[in-house]
Amino acid sequence: MTAPRRAATPANINQSVTGLVPYQGGKPIEELSRERGIADIVKLASNENPRGPGPRARKALAEAAGELSRYPDGNGFRLKAALADHLDVDPSRITLGNGSNDVLDLAARVAVSPGTRGVVDAHCFVVYPMAITAAGGELVTVPSANWGHDLEAMAAAVDETTRIMFLANPNNPTGTCFDEAALFRFLEAVPRRVWVVLDEAYAEYVSGPVGAGGRYPDGVRLLDAHSNLIVTRTFSKIHALAALRIGYAVSSAEFADLLNRVRQPFNANSLALAAAEGALGDVEYATESRQLNDEGMDRLTRGFEALSLKWIPSAGNFVTFHVGPNRDAMAVYEALLDQGVIVRPVANYGMPEHLRVTVGLADENDRFLKALSRAL
Amino acid sequence: MTAPRRAATPANINQSVTGLVPYQGGKPIEELSRERGIADIVKLASNENPRGPGPRARKALAEAAGELSRYPDGNGFRLKAALADHLDVDPSRITLGNGSNDVLDLAARVAVSPGTRGVVDAHCFVVYPMAITAAGGELVTVPSANWGHDLEAMAAAVDETTRIMFLANPNNPTGTCFDEAALFRFLEAVPRRVWVVLDEAYAEYVSGPVGAGGRYPDGVRLLDAHSNLIVTRTFSKIHALAALRIGYAVSSAEFADLLNRVRQPFNANSLALAAAEGALGDVEYATESRQLNDEGMDRLTRGFEALSLKWIPSAGNFVTFHVGPNRDAMAVYEALLDQGVIVRPVANYGMPEHLRVTVGLADENDRFLKALSRAL
Repeated sequence: MTAPRRAATPANINQSVTGLVPYQGGKPIEELSRERGIADIVKLASNENPRGPGPRARKALAEAAGELSRYPDGNGFRLKAALADHLDVDPSRITLGNGSNDVLDLAARVAVSPGTRGVVDAHCFVVYPMAITAAGGELVTVPSANWGHDLEAMAAAVDETTRIMFLANPNNPTGTCFDEAALFRFLEAVPRRVWVVLDEAYAEYVSGPVGAGGRYPDGVRLLDAHSNLIVTRTFSKIHALAALRIGYAVSSAEFADLLNRVRQPFNANSLALAAAEGALGDVEYATESRQLNDEGMDRLTRGFEALSLKWIPSAGNFVTFHVGPNRDAMAVYEALLDQGVIVRPVANYGMPEHLRVTVGLADENDRFLKALSRAL
Repeated sequence: MTAPRRAATPANINQSVTGLVPYQGGKPIEELSRERGIADIVKLASNENPRGPGPRARKALAEAAGELSRYPDGNGFRLKAALADHLDVDPSRITLGNGSNDVLDLAARVAVSPGTRGVVDAHCFVVYPMAITAAGGELVTVPSANWGHDLEAMAAAVDETTRIMFLANPNNPTGTCFDEAALFRFLEAVPRRVWVVLDEAYAEYVSGPVGAGGRYPDGVRLLDAHSNLIVTRTFSKIHALAALRIGYAVSSAEFADLLNRVRQPFNANSLALAAAEGALGDVEYATESRQLNDEGMDRLTRGFEALSLKWIPSAGNFVTFHVGPNRDAMAVYEALLDQGVIVRPVANYGMPEHLRVTVGLADENDRFLKALSRAL
């Protein structure tokens, strides 16, 4: 992981904060437009669903927009009930978040205190190390195996000071996936006193077997047997509600109670609660989005092949490719920006020779491949 | 303040979390309807603007609703620019939050670490002690003077371990206000190494002189002279956007940089960003809301007088009244609920004989007074 920044800081602040480097998100369309005067921009930088939200989410949102001066239901009664039904779990096991980022951060705040450690993969989502560090914990980074989590090495990295571990399946930004058998072995190897956060932000995009041909594990189904497991999901990806910020954790009721104590009382806004409930019921729309993603992924990887570029096989709605020998990833990124195409540099994920591109609509994928061909 | 709950908790969690008691918000209309089968409900429990958002906020929201699958601008460029213009400060001094609750919590996370202390008033907004405790700090609670902050006693409570203090002006739930001269004296008495958070959530409701006839201080104007000051404001109150969750802090650029490191990258959602920008420009709507509030406050206090009840004079959009001798505040609260009127118990604010009521529309205020008369 990136080395913590250790600038000289005043003595009257929490020193854990000095180790944090602000998150670098995908460049917003408006920002590129402002900076380079480009009007026609394609953003494939933040793993967003290019179709936008489905009709049921839009309808729920429109209905909820009448009562904006009222605080949200801080208990999220309706969305929790819908999720409980959808996932077949008790509502007391669900914690709603301002995006799943929020529940990831809350999990670290509950588990970690100064003098304890959190374990992550070398190419993990940067929010995990941020959450561990901000909570005052020490970060332990385990090298990846073929760009994916080395689950055996991660389990072996646990010591008596370890409080939390973060896994992502599929992983962002690598798109790698582990199978059910590997997860079982991992969960058996990790002591029950260590909290395991399994981030399934991209779960709904997985189609077909994963890893070495194994079955994709559904984390929620493992909760009963593993009281130390916390599964997180989001409405920002296949459900296309990133703008609204809504995600959730499913855990033991006891851990959910702790998350709810640290949670800000009105962390999930009213429109997000309503739209998420609508999106959850729109199975058809999610299925169509996954099919479109499969087609787009096929188009992109054939494009890379045609350009003789290597990529990391991905189970998500994005794919990370190597810009090729003797090329500078940031120069390729800039050349794409000049053509109005925004992808994602991943140097801050320890991958300075790669770029990550989100699967877009068919014409967006084609435009990206054309621009990439020119940029190389 | 309420004594921290010290239940037996597992050793593998952050022990600071065990001291937290979940926040009790105002009862949502939907919840009361569900529980007691009441259809016609007036909620005067959460200091919301009863008029709803103004036309410019609504228009901005409608325009922003098209791009829900895109992540928000994590830097909040447009809203920060509008706020910077409105407040006449550099945008680098502004930190946006998921409601001002978010920036209050962030300020505690930046300032506090285990072994340090935070100072609050005995009848303060419960989010302050929650934020201090969650950050691992020790809470120091200073008795109020006439239900308002005893600023001299608060300054005197500072010791070498003090990292942060929270003031609210007006204060919630008491509605009390201190004047500019008192704030000047306080800021001169507090060492510069101690961070002072001045919560101005209700600032826009203040009309006329405050305290003992003094001038209401504008915290933002004091930032240049006081590098340890952090002023927070919200769009949830007079701007009527509580459902969307948007607030902000204004501080030194250096402290803002620290807040931004701990902040979740997309803490403010896109619709909130857009609607807040619209609301900020609608000076006329805010002025009308303040006038309506003045009229409603007058109506409510005349009503209390007619019922021989005592109240705490309030500069906000709410007023806290004593239910009278030999009466149980919770019984009065329940009797109001039975009549479809939701107010706020404040026992968890150390005020078990009081109830807090938000100034509503004229007919809502009348309905409350009628219901209260029956309830007594």
